[in-house]
This record gives sequence, structure tokens and C-alpha cells, in this order.
Amino acid sequence: MAPSATVDHTNGGIPHHPKTATKLKEPNGVTSRSSGDPLVLPPGTSSEQFADFISRAKAICGAENVFIVETSDQLIDGTYKEPNKTHDMHAVLDRSYFVCSATISPRNVPEVQEMMRLCNEFDIPVWPFSIGRNTGYGGAAPRVPGSICLELGKNMNRILEVNTEDAYALVEPGVTYFDLHEYLEKHNLREKVWIDVPDLGGGSIIGNTIERGVGYTPYGDHFMMHCGMEVVLPNGELIRTGMGALPDKTSGHRDGLRPDEQPGNKAWHLFNYGFGPYNDGIFTQSNLGIVVKMGIWLMPNPGGYQAYMITFPRDEDLHQVMDIIRPLRIQMVLQNVPTLRSILMDAAVHGNKKSFSNSDKPLTDAELDEIAKKLDLGRWNFYGALYGPEPIREALWSIIKKAFSAVPGAKFYFPEDRHEEYSVLRTRALTLQGIPTFDELRWVDWLPNGAHLFFSPIAKISGDDATLQYQVTKKRCDEAGLDFIGDFVVGMREMHHIVCIVFDREDPESKKKAHWLIRTLIDDCAAYGWGEYRTHLAVMDQIAGTYNFNDNAQMKLNEQIKNALDPKGVLAPGKNGVWPSTYNKKAWAIPTD
Amino acid sequence: MAPSATVDHTNGGIPHHPKTATKLKEPNGVTSRSSGDPLVLPPGTSSEQFADFISRAKAICGAENVFIVETSDQLIDGTYKEPNKTHDMHAVLDRSYFVCSATISPRNVPEVQEMMRLCNEFDIPVWPFSIGRNTGYGGAAPRVPGSICLELGKNMNRILEVNTEDAYALVEPGVTYFDLHEYLEKHNLREKVWIDVPDLGGGSIIGNTIERGVGYTPYGDHFMMHCGMEVVLPNGELIRTGMGALPDKTSGHRDGLRPDEQPGNKAWHLFNYGFGPYNDGIFTQSNLGIVVKMGIWLMPNPGGYQAYMITFPRDEDLHQVMDIIRPLRIQMVLQNVPTLRSILMDAAVHGNKKSFSNSDKPLTDAELDEIAKKLDLGRWNFYGALYGPEPIREALWSIIKKAFSAVPGAKFYFPEDRHEEYSVLRTRALTLQGIPTFDELRWVDWLPNGAHLFFSPIAKISGDDATLQYQVTKKRCDEAGLDFIGDFVVGMREMHHIVCIVFDREDPESKKKAHWLIRTLIDDCAAYGWGEYRTHLAVMDQIAGTYNFNDNAQMKLNEQIKNALDPKGVLAPGKNGVWPSTYNKKAWAIPTD
Repeated sequence: MAPSATVDHTNGGIPHHPKTATKLKEPNGVTSRSSGDPLVLPPGTSSEQFADFISRAKAICGAENVFIVETSDQLIDGTYKEPNKTHDMHAVLDRSYFVCSATISPRNVPEVQEMMRLCNEFDIPVWPFSIGRNTGYGGAAPRVPGSICLELGKNMNRILEVNTEDAYALVEPGVTYFDLHEYLEKHNLREKVWIDVPDLGGGSIIGNTIERGVGYTPYGDHFMMHCGMEVVLPNGELIRTGMGALPDKTSGHRDGLRPDEQPGNKAWHLFNYGFGPYNDGIFTQSNLGIVVKMGIWLMPNPGGYQAYMITFPRDEDLHQVMDIIRPLRIQMVLQNVPTLRSILMDAAVHGNKKSFSNSDKPLTDAELDEIAKKLDLGRWNFYGALYGPEPIREALWSIIKKAFSAVPGAKFYFPEDRHEEYSVLRTRALTLQGIPTFDELRWVDWLPNGAHLFFSPIAKISGDDATLQYQVTKKRCDEAGLDFIGDFVVGMREMHHIVCIVFDREDPESKKKAHWLIRTLIDDCAAYGWGEYRTHLAVMDQIAGTYNFNDNAQMKLNEQIKNALDPKGVLAPGKNGVWPSTYNKKAWAIPTD
Repeated sequence: MAPSATVDHTNGGIPHHPKTATKLKEPNGVTSRSSGDPLVLPPGTSSEQFADFISRAKAICGAENVFIVETSDQLIDGTYKEPNKTHDMHAVLDRSYFVCSATISPRNVPEVQEMMRLCNEFDIPVWPFSIGRNTGYGGAAPRVPGSICLELGKNMNRILEVNTEDAYALVEPGVTYFDLHEYLEKHNLREKVWIDVPDLGGGSIIGNTIERGVGYTPYGDHFMMHCGMEVVLPNGELIRTGMGALPDKTSGHRDGLRPDEQPGNKAWHLFNYGFGPYNDGIFTQSNLGIVVKMGIWLMPNPGGYQAYMITFPRDEDLHQVMDIIRPLRIQMVLQNVPTLRSILMDAAVHGNKKSFSNSDKPLTDAELDEIAKKLDLGRWNFYGALYGPEPIREALWSIIKKAFSAVPGAKFYFPEDRHEEYSVLRTRALTLQGIPTFDELRWVDWLPNGAHLFFSPIAKISGDDATLQYQVTKKRCDEAGLDFIGDFVVGMREMHHIVCIVFDREDPESKKKAHWLIRTLIDDCAAYGWGEYRTHLAVMDQIAGTYNFNDNAQMKLNEQIKNALDPKGVLAPGKNGVWPSTYNKKAWAIPTD
């Protein structure tokens, strides 16, 4: 049978030029390794070619910005100071599976462009990342082992503008939520504008946004709140989207400057759409471009703030609570992106499993009830915030309190009502006003050598959907011998259900269970019509396969665009299931048992 | 010199297969017309081919749904009952310039798909429209004379779902704002949900949204508020975007139904992004697909409403007013998309120019002051609304009133304060709560045989930008001998400045002036860094040419995608300046004097 990519199903039968027959890319077999070779060579690349490529890359980016991953020991022995930037730090497969051949850190936009041209010339796959904190989804690791990783954040980390009058910032890939927060603090700007932060503040603003991550203030939908991008295309070309495509000679434009150094149009970060096709979305969760600058809207200081927690005592309260949340959220009485957290998500930040139980089985309902009681929390705990001057907050709080009081045993807390040493509410009270923390991932230590995968299906905000999704996922967690740790993150009209699959990264059995669990949950949920919004490298193909309306018509479209913009398929092949026609997709299937 | 499209600049020098040399499409020369020929044949199409095509189209869509534009008389003599659907009803060029060869009205999605396949087979350009009310921007008319027009709205006009629990509607292209409004009224649903409407209610919801039109409630950004599309691609393939790509077998999916008849995923209209590249934006203002279904979010009834008008007496108040608007809007104290209208935009709905003045020159400041005084209006008049229960409205109104009271002579009105027979405020009081009207375009009768073009640059919300933009545009209106009629529509962080270029459609001189004016304004504004968000057919190329950052990098990207998805270039060639490689772009330049 002919390799599938030479049969073009993507074009509706319209005749076009056949591809020159070339071998489709497959994983390298075992090769004799030369000194200086990486642990895994890029597919189809010889030692000599790789050495040539590296020497060219050093000439472009400087030798100090090129790091070859030579041995698997480097992954853990600290030879490379930030080992998570060469592989998946929460490896659910063998640690040396999702590993790059080298990380290369360009110093500026022209070097990113040069690197894309070089990768095209050498036909070497390149996986860009900003900071590498895509935690639970693969970190900095590439989908194709042996890819070179382009680490954008190391050198390209300037806050280019913070505009409090129009309430936006313009940042480079290396700017983290912490960086921007510290900038605001240092310049006393939080009186004017707040940022929105995800659970962890150490990640890249650009990285999070283009992965369509969310935060928890009213500005929680980061893609919705982005405005204007500068993007390096797979061929090395540089574009600006939206109004950025219109050069503004009145704003300091100078002919001597590089395109990426030209000041942007004054409306670049004020109006997303520009003129003609609105392209920004195709640069999110995709392998069609590298975002090297981005505008993000800041939230005007609302003039008042109050975080709160509402606890619900019984596991089955989930149903009633969700049906209370929906109308309040759609009405924006709930102004922000609130979360409803299962007891263990909160308990696990207080201590590991051993501190609560000697059981090595999933905890029972009775045990969970006891933990909730001990911590003075509910089986479900709801975190939200009120924004605005006091009369506004009070009006909203009275509606919210009345609505949730319908749940028997519901209790209402402000941060000052909690007296435990570590309080999730006190941490959330920071997060929900855009102050980043490092605390939110503490639950990953639930198990020894804790690592995690996120399983993140989308659903309607309803008691029925939440309860069924909770039952389906909890049942499979039980089967895998894992505790259910999760929360519901409530967006504008839907909820992201985030199931935190915690496993012991030093225990092969635990890793196998986690991998089995996520694969099983994807299929279970697809059967109910639920799909995931984002995922780990190991299951991208599987999830992409569930979005298969009309014989995978959307994937065929994605492939057509991919092949047009990146004919050699060098940029992030396989990202979210989109494989270029130069790859034998089947050969890159992820090993299961 | 070789035709430009055989030299491929779009690919960054990456080698690829050269195109077979075929003649690039140019406008037809004078041909002998056969009986049954349209006024203008599709480019490169003979009478015989056209006749074949029409007979095939009749077989697909039914003879009653195929109408050939045979003579220019048909454009005006009423032979075709809706003549505006064959050409630009506000023709600024000769009425027979932007004219289609035939309008064809598919009855369902498979017929749209069949028509795309047929157009590919015959290599005939096709211009889709929903209702044809793209008024001021070309109506239903095609960019390429002689295209066939695909009229989606005639037969595909069902409201497929109105979901008040999750606050969205799912509509077909023929559903107008009036239709949806009447549905809500008929089913007593306005107690639960409101729609957002643009100035005129007769247009298509899908058509307006994919042209990125705006309305005036808090849900005024229609593209932001859309959720989930079904799209026919240029090759006839059918996709669903976002969560719609995941079939939901639990929601009534049946194997016997056509793909477009399958019920959608339950989260299709709740969550926009789905998984992988987010493609919806590339189907807006583009020629990459035909949107045949779309979800749109509805606004929950806010539980209270109050429209208001604030008048400002002096022309130069514009500066101060804009600087007051910006922080209030970004803070969402101004909850909706408010408008600041120049005096003539309001005066012109009260009467035509003759009713105010015998002058045939642009009215002077003294004359405008006098009109404002006579109508008890300001030189600038601000229309907004308050949403929510009374305490919320009162809190907001006190802030708004205090802020605008800083402008000497500002006056504040509610609808009941106005006693004239026709009141703009009373009309706006409907529009701003999502009740459509036909009144908003009354200003087009300012001149005899009034027709109009919209000139719509985007800018920062500021006194400096508004004043300069007003001065620049008013000066050119004066030079053209036309009155300035315009308003500023205030979005989230920017303003759409809408200049209404009113001309006499029976007076060739008046048309020439209007065409000169818009061409001149585009260049003037580009020099200041201002670009338009949307435009008329006649100046699409010119405006696309102003979005030329880095040697037109964005246009090269748009062309690459266009050529990949539509290799023959049959779908809406030239739309917003994006020409397929099969067209000789220069040959399609719009005639000026």
C-alpha cells in the first residue's frame, strides 16, 4: 500500500501536481552513535548532517545558546541546569522518549527567522517553546523525539510596553506572569491595571495564551484577551496580525530598523481583527507559526475586590451546585472564572496521601468525608471573587450567597475567616486578583515522586454533565488505583473539567496506569460527546481523532493549511495531531504496552 | 514579463512544483452576446459553457432558484423582484459594473457543496452572500463582474435552535436580526434573552458576523460573541469548527442523516476553540469558506435597562468627550458599545439637506450650529445605555453623569425627555436593547437619490485621534463638496469611526466625488497609521495594500492559504484584496477616471 501521504484526500478531488516520491519520515532506527551525537538524532538526519546543522546554528545564535542533549544521564544529573527544557519533566513514558536532540536559544527575531530557514535547509524538525512550563501537557518536550527545541524565552524576555491608559501590555515569549506582575509592582501600576494569571505564575504569557490556557479573573480567557501578534512563519517570514499589519509612520517608524524593531501601529493592541481574514487563531495550539510578540489586555483595577470560598458538604452536592452556577455565570453575577474543586485537590496541598491515610488504594467516600471534616472543608469547594466598589460587591454577594444557600450545609468564607497555616483560599485570593504564586501545584506531591498529566474535557455547565463526567472519570481513576483529584473551571458558557492524574514518576507501574487512564478517559468521554481542550504530547493523536466530524474534515483542512505553509513539515510536526505530508504518521504512534 | 502569479514570492524560497502555465484570468473583452447570455459572462467562460453551467445548476438547485441577469434594464426595471441582489444597490461605479451573471439559491447545505464542486468543474467564480444587505460595502454584488452569486438566505433561513438556558441561538444564513427578534417576541423569550442588533435589522446574522459587523449592546462585538460554525470549503467539503468537530452520539446522532443534519455537539455553541488550530477567524472577511450555520451568544436579560443621550454643544467638544469616554469604556462603566454622532447624522434623519438649507455646498459651522439649535441637539450627541437592576444603573449613571458634566453645556436626556415627532434617541433606545429597526439609515436621504459608501477607520479612543481623524476626513469631505456625516462607535479598546459618504446615485459627478473621496481618505488615513476595518468592493485592493507590513507579508500568507484551499480560485476572488494565483490581479483594478 502506498504511504498515506502520497494519496491526497484533502483536496476534494481537484487535480493538482503529484508530490515527488520521497521517503516519508519515520523514527530513526538504532544507529551507531558518534561522539557529540545527541541521545536521539532528528529523524532522517545523519551524525554528519547534525554536526553541520549545529555548527550553523552556533553561528546564528552563538555557541553559548546551543546545547546538545548527549546522554540520558544529562536528563537527570544536572549537567544541563534546566533539564526540564530537554524533555517532559512529568514523563509518563520513558524519560528519554520525548526528548530533543538540542535546545537552541535565539537572541532575537531575525535569529528565529534564520533558524527556521536553517531547519528547512536541513529538513530538521523544530519544536518551539517559550519557557517550557506547559506542565501536565508535556512541558518543553517535542512530539517528535530528536527534534531540536527552540527555546524562545531564554533571551527574548522583554516587556516591550505596559500601557495603562489603554490597558494592555506587549511582551516577548520569555515574559512570565511573575515578570509582568513584578513590573507592575515595581512601577506602582497595580493601582491602574491588573494582570490575569493561571494557577502557576512561572509560565510564559505568550506560551499560555497560544495554548489557550485560562486564568481566573474576569480576563480569564487569555486568547480572548490577547490583541495583536508578531509571528515567524515556517518559512522564516515575519508577519504582524490585525492592525499590526499597517505600518504606522507616525509612531516612530524608521527605515533603518529591522521589521521586528519597528514600533507597531497604535491600534495593534487595541483592535484584534484588522482587515481581511483574521488569522490569529491558526497560530494557537498549532504548528503554523512561532509567536514572537503579543499584546495582552490588562484588566483595569476594579476599585475593590473580595475573594471568597463556599464549601459544600456532600459529594452529590455537585449536581445542585452546578445548576446554581450556570445562570449566575452567564449573567456575570459571577464576574470571574470561578472553580469548584474536589476535596482532594485542596487536601493534597495540605499534605501528601501518607499524611492522611495508610491506604494504597483510592480513598473511599468515608475517608474523603473524614478528610473534609478534618480540614473544615467541603467535599466540593467553590472559589470566586467579587470585583468593584463596595456597593457593587455587596449587591453581587447578596445574590450569590442567597443562591448557594439553597444547598444544605453550604458555608461561606472570606480569607480572614480561615485560620489554618496554609489556606487554599488565601492562595486563591491572590490568584483571583492576578497575583501569581507557586503554590497552586502543591497537590502534585500527593504521591511520592509526584508527577502529573492533565485530562481536560469541556462540557456544558450543568448538574447532569458535571455529575456524569465526575462519575465516569472517578470510576476509571478507581480502576487505575488512583485517587480522583480535579476541579471544574467555569468559563463563559462551559466548564473545563481538569482531572489531575497524579502518578509516581519513579514507578513504571504507576506511569503505565496513568497512561492507561488518560487513554481510556479520552475514549469514554468521546462516547458521551465530550472533547478535551488541550492535552499532553502522548495523546494528541488520539484526541485529534475524536474531533472527526464528517470523516475528519477539520483535520484535512488543518493538514492542507499545514502543507501549504510548511511544505517540508519542519515546524512542530505532530503538534495536536496535525502531521505534515512528509511524515509517516502511523510510524510515530506512541508506544503503549 | 512573466505573469506575476507564476513567480511565487510566497514560499520563502523553498523549492516547490512550478505551476502549469495557464492563462491568468482577466476581464472578458467585448464578446458577441447570444440570447440567454447574462449581461456579463464569468471571466474566461464562453456562452456555451455558461449555458451548460446554468443547466447543471438548475439540476442541482431547481430552475426556480436560478436567475440570469440578462440585461442592464433588469437591474432597474423590476423584472427581477429583488434587483439589489444582482448588483451593488449603492453603486458608486456604473450600475452595471459590479454585477453578477446569475444568482443561484441553493436549498440546503448539500446543494451549496454541489455548487462549489460545479464551480470548480467549470472554473467559474462564485460570490456567496446571505441576505445581500452589506449596505455601504457593496451589498450582494461580487468583486469580479460576471461571477455567479450564491444567495444563501433565500431558502436556508431556519432558526435551528434558541437555547435560553445556555443563552445562544443556532441560525442559517437567511436568518435576519428581525427574524430572530420576532422569534423571541413570539415565544415570549425576551424575558430571558436579548439579541444584539446592528443599525439595520434586515441583514443576516451570519453575514454581519462574518463581515465582523458590530452592534451596540454589551454583546456588540459579533465575532467575539459567535460560537461554532459549519462551513463549506472551496472544494465542497463540509466542516464544523470548535467543539462541533466532535460528533455527539448522545445528542440524537443518526447514521441515516446527512452530516449537516446531524445534531451538533452539546458544547458546539458553548466553547469556541475546540482542539488544535482555532480556524473560525479565517472564515471572516475572507474567501476561504461559506458559513452555512453559526451559533451566536445571546445576552441574558439584564433585569433592567435605560437608554440615554448626552448632547455636547460645540464642535471642539469632541476632544474632551473622547478622553472622558476611554477610561469609562475600558472600565465597563460604559457597559455597551456607545456612539458619538455628529450633528448631521442626527439631523439627516429629520429631513434632507433641502429641508435645512438652500446651499449646495458643505454646510458651514454656523449653519451646523443653527441646525443643532433648531433640533435641540448638540454638535456631537452621545448615545448609551445602562443595563441591570436599578441600584446598578443608578450607581453607573451617577458616575457617567458626573464625568460628562465636565464638558460645559453638556445636557442629559432619557427617551421620555424628548418630544419631537421623530427622535433618534427613541430609535437608539430600541437598538441598544437589541430591538431591530429600519430607521437608522434615514440619513441616506440627505441628498436626492441618496446612496452611500462607508469609510471606517479604526483608532485609539482618544481626543487627539478623534479630533485629528475628524479634521482629516472633514477637510476632504469639504473638498469633495460633501457634508461630513459620521459617528464614532466605541468598542472595547478602540473606536470605529464611521464616515457616511452620501452621494446622488443618479448624478455621475456626485458618484465620482464619492469615489475620489474614499480613495483619498484611505491614503490620508494610512499616512497617519489608521486602517479601515471593512470596506466597499471598489477599494478592497487599496485598503489591503495599506496593511503592508514587511513587504506585504500578511497578504502573502493570505494568498498561500487561499491557493492551498482553493487552487482554482473560484470562491470570491479578490475579496478584501486576496486574489488567487489564477487571476491577473492588475487586470481587475477598479476603473477610476
